[in-house]
Amino acid sequence: MDIATVLGVISAFGLVCIAIFMGGGIQLFINIPALMIVVGGTLGATMINYPLKDVFGVFKIVKKALFARSISVTELIKRFMVFAKKSRKEGILALEGDIKDEKDEFLRKGIQLAIDGLEPQEISDILETEVDFVRNRHQLGAEIFSTMGTFSPALGMIGTLIGLVQMLQTMDDPSKIGPAMAVALLTTFYGSIIANIVCLPIAGKLRIRSKEEVLTKEMAIRGIACLSNGDNPRILEQKLQAFIPPNQRESL
Amino acid sequence: MDIATVLGVISAFGLVCIAIFMGGGIQLFINIPALMIVVGGTLGATMINYPLKDVFGVFKIVKKALFARSISVTELIKRFMVFAKKSRKEGILALEGDIKDEKDEFLRKGIQLAIDGLEPQEISDILETEVDFVRNRHQLGAEIFSTMGTFSPALGMIGTLIGLVQMLQTMDDPSKIGPAMAVALLTTFYGSIIANIVCLPIAGKLRIRSKEEVLTKEMAIRGIACLSNGDNPRILEQKLQAFIPPNQRESL
Amino acid sequence: MDIATVLGVISAFGLVCIAIFMGGGIQLFINIPALMIVVGGTLGATMINYPLKDVFGVFKIVKKALFARSISVTELIKRFMVFAKKSRKEGILALEGDIKDEKDEFLRKGIQLAIDGLEPQEISDILETEVDFVRNRHQLGAEIFSTMGTFSPALGMIGTLIGLVQMLQTMDDPSKIGPAMAVALLTTFYGSIIANIVCLPIAGKLRIRSKEEVLTKEMAIRGIACLSNGDNPRILEQKLQAFIPPNQRESL
Amino acid sequence: MDIATVLGVISAFGLVCIAIFMGGGIQLFINIPALMIVVGGTLGATMINYPLKDVFGVFKIVKKALFARSISVTELIKRFMVFAKKSRKEGILALEGDIKDEKDEFLRKGIQLAIDGLEPQEISDILETEVDFVRNRHQLGAEIFSTMGTFSPALGMIGTLIGLVQMLQTMDDPSKIGPAMAVALLTTFYGSIIANIVCLPIAGKLRIRSKEEVLTKEMAIRGIACLSNGDNPRILEQKLQAFIPPNQRESL
Amino acid sequence: MDIATVLGVISAFGLVCIAIFMGGGIQLFINIPALMIVVGGTLGATMINYPLKDVFGVFKIVKKALFARSISVTELIKRFMVFAKKSRKEGILALEGDIKDEKDEFLRKGIQLAIDGLEPQEISDILETEVDFVRNRHQLGAEIFSTMGTFSPALGMIGTLIGLVQMLQTMDDPSKIGPAMAVALLTTFYGSIIANIVCLPIAGKLRIRSKEEVLTKEMAIRGIACLSNGDNPRILEQKLQAFIPPNQRESL
Repeated sequence: MDIATVLGVISAFGLVCIAIFMGGGIQLFINIPALMIVVGGTLGATMINYPLKDVFGVFKIVKKALFARSISVTELIKRFMVFAKKSRKEGILALEGDIKDEKDEFLRKGIQLAIDGLEPQEISDILETEVDFVRNRHQLGAEIFSTMGTFSPALGMIGTLIGLVQMLQTMDDPSKIGPAMAVALLTTFYGSIIANIVCLPIAGKLRIRSKEEVLTKEMAIRGIACLSNGDNPRILEQKLQAFIPPNQRESL
Repeated sequence: MDIATVLGVISAFGLVCIAIFMGGGIQLFINIPALMIVVGGTLGATMINYPLKDVFGVFKIVKKALFARSISVTELIKRFMVFAKKSRKEGILALEGDIKDEKDEFLRKGIQLAIDGLEPQEISDILETEVDFVRNRHQLGAEIFSTMGTFSPALGMIGTLIGLVQMLQTMDDPSKIGPAMAVALLTTFYGSIIANIVCLPIAGKLRIRSKEEVLTKEMAIRGIACLSNGDNPRILEQKLQAFIPPNQRESL
Repeated sequence: MDIATVLGVISAFGLVCIAIFMGGGIQLFINIPALMIVVGGTLGATMINYPLKDVFGVFKIVKKALFARSISVTELIKRFMVFAKKSRKEGILALEGDIKDEKDEFLRKGIQLAIDGLEPQEISDILETEVDFVRNRHQLGAEIFSTMGTFSPALGMIGTLIGLVQMLQTMDDPSKIGPAMAVALLTTFYGSIIANIVCLPIAGKLRIRSKEEVLTKEMAIRGIACLSNGDNPRILEQKLQAFIPPNQRESL
Repeated sequence: MDIATVLGVISAFGLVCIAIFMGGGIQLFINIPALMIVVGGTLGATMINYPLKDVFGVFKIVKKALFARSISVTELIKRFMVFAKKSRKEGILALEGDIKDEKDEFLRKGIQLAIDGLEPQEISDILETEVDFVRNRHQLGAEIFSTMGTFSPALGMIGTLIGLVQMLQTMDDPSKIGPAMAVALLTTFYGSIIANIVCLPIAGKLRIRSKEEVLTKEMAIRGIACLSNGDNPRILEQKLQAFIPPNQRESL
Repeated sequence: MDIATVLGVISAFGLVCIAIFMGGGIQLFINIPALMIVVGGTLGATMINYPLKDVFGVFKIVKKALFARSISVTELIKRFMVFAKKSRKEGILALEGDIKDEKDEFLRKGIQLAIDGLEPQEISDILETEVDFVRNRHQLGAEIFSTMGTFSPALGMIGTLIGLVQMLQTMDDPSKIGPAMAVALLTTFYGSIIANIVCLPIAGKLRIRSKEEVLTKEMAIRGIACLSNGDNPRILEQKLQAFIPPNQRESL
């Protein structure tokens, strides 16, 4: 799992929990109906907003974004250098064995197309279309989380208004005002937590991951085009290194 | 009706209602004058903002977006494959019978134009113009709902200010402050509900539906152009499958 | 006057007034100094922001947008069909009599240019420049109202702060706190009303009207170009109908 | 000085002051430490945000925007007509005397370049570059005022929080709560005034002035190109009048 | 260190501290758990949002932006004039000695490429790619600070909600309400300070610095292209002076 996310979750939630424990105990902050209004209402509004398959699909996208280790760009360059050298010496058909157990499905498919002898332009077109769909899927995921991040504080406020109205209508015993108001505020609390520690940061991470993944795939497309053209390994290296910052480049 | 919308409405409204019932009963939350200010005022501001026919037309757009089952993309491809094979064998005029009971009006009109022998470019121009109007109509609908979603919390606040001013001016009996304030808060409550559980999610859904419908229509335009060109069914399939994500494609 | 605006004003203001009367009477909600701060302050900030002639000119724009009946698109097409037929039969000079009492100044000027024998391209250039100025004038109007709609709630809050500070400094008699606070809240109330029921919806209507007027003028430019070219009335009809949604088209 | 600004300042500040005097006296609203937090803090945050020379330069830009009378567009056209006629009769060198005491530096420089015999394209390039820098300087000014307009309410809130914390910690004498809270609210009051009556309207005016000045300069560039080309005065007039709305054009 | 930043920090923090001291002492405003929630929670949410290396890298970017003295544009022009004259007289290889102890790495690398005899277009391509990466790095830095500036007030509010809930649940002793509420407000206070005096102004400064640095680098690229072309020093001066405002230009 992504290390920054783990640290972030520990830092943000941990500190909130410590503050809660120092002030008397977590039982003051657990209120199932309040949680139901905020979580259920946010999911409900999101389901009115987006098709069902997209709302449920978003969790798979998040899981993939947080857990899947995408191949690093420098490693990708090394891999392509190996392919290019072999292809130069033994012909592109020799790569057939190498890609059999290639885990990255996109790379495997692309090189297979090159081995099958498609024109470089055709290969690029096919792979670019797939990259577009990847990009759209990620953007949709980020958008759904952003939307949830705007609905959840609103539903928190709706829950607090419900609690306030109920409290104000039955205000005979002054000693009960405080606790009733505390409970009313819990939905606002949940809404803020869900928006600012869960939904909005995850939306941000999905956008970042999308950029990274698309960059890697664009590099792969460029590399496959070079293989298909039978480019010199040196030229392939130069072309791929243009994708990464100068200080990360290393001669291979 | 759209299943996600049903689930979303049940989830969001159901949980809010449960929370209300657990706290004492729904009669505390029903206040006709408050509802009139928020609903009537929001509609009023919207009618100042948009022409009358657009405000009333929006409900038809919503009904269509939630209830009309648009044809699925894979089914559309299958349909076009059938048309293309028949047209190849028996000529494009043979399609005249097939489209008589075609329910999708757009498809029927487009194929009729192809049968009538218009140039592919002319057909595309005519159909693209229609798609533009569909897109504009949907965008206007989404925009009207977004606008209502910004006016309704504002009118909720105006209602609450009216209630507060009235309460503060006549504050002789402290026991009445609570209930009067509760009533004043109800307009804010209604405004939030209308914005966040009704208007904004529906605006979102209209945008999603618009994208889906426009995509389907663009596919149909491409397919009709192929029919009109007399393209090979295989090529037509490939061209249409470029519109859908790779993992949903299936050879037909 | 525009029917939607009338209905909207009645609906929004009427309901607010009813709510006010039901709660005790309108005299609680009339406070001249509060009104002066909000209205005068908003106009003041707007006059710092925009040149004087633009601030005063905006009321003329609004009056025109709400009262002037622009010619309907279908009527415009009919009118052009008549012109085209006459021009075909008797030559374009024959239109000189028809446009003498044409009320739409833009149309009259454009056809006069065609009669004067300017090139179609020159006519389009001259008329397009005028449409640009119309569009800019409308956009400026909408922008000024949007700006007023953001200044007025801010000035409402400033007025409320003034009232609160005065109340809090002289808080010896608790029975006066309520009424003093009620008065303080009135500026916020006025600011919200002015923004959400007056300025922002009018800004929206100006934008809508601008689109309509520009569309009509673009149609007129296209039609005049056809007249000047001596196009066939049928072709002119087809070209103009491309501007309106398919379901509103009718053969003439 | 710009008349709209004077009227706006009188209207906005005057009404606020009247409201303050009617409620008891201005001494309640003067609090030097509160003013220091808001003004000093806003300037401080702005100085962290922008280079020092830009923050101080902004006051010169404002002074120029409010006081400098830019030449009116109709007067500019008249001036160019005079130049064009003289240049036609006596040659462009004859303009050397006329521009000696021309106050508008931009105009003087441009015509001097034409007299010096540079190509029209070269003159345009040089002058366009200067217009770009004028535009950038104005945009920077407007941006700095917008930024101050977002920092000042935030610092007002920070000041109020400081006051509230101090008040709440020492709440033994209830009679002091009111005045202490009044003082705490003053920073929010100052922040709102500075943002909504000073910074944001001035940012708006700078944007408007920038557009006006750039338009005048673009007209001058076009006119100088005509002089340099030796265009007929009639053609020069037509070209310059295309910059102003049709209803302001007058034959000269 | 950047003088504006120093003055800004002194002005903003100094005035806040003075206001705090005047009201009784800074110990009222120090609360470690509150600080931990806001700072830790903001960093946590930021780490969920951005990759770990970017979050930590941002401090290096800030340090560089505040401390590194970038070369002034007029000095850069002078330097290039010297290079151009020498290169004209003794050939471009003569610059090899001059750039050995050039501190600006970008300049050194660029001139080395020119000495090595690469084509001007190739040099520009290589250097432009590096400028792109510099620009992206700066934008990422500014974006991370903006994000922290939106998370920190949200976490301030979450902390205040925690404090309020705890206070309201245990409201038996009225004399403790004030101090407990003061402590609860401290997190909102910290969140506002961090956002408005730290994060948002620094995000702004990074954007400004990025523009300055990119401008300097673009000038250097243009100058190196001139050296590589063997342009006349006069022409080189003219080309570089087009980058700076006319009133800052001086003949060298």
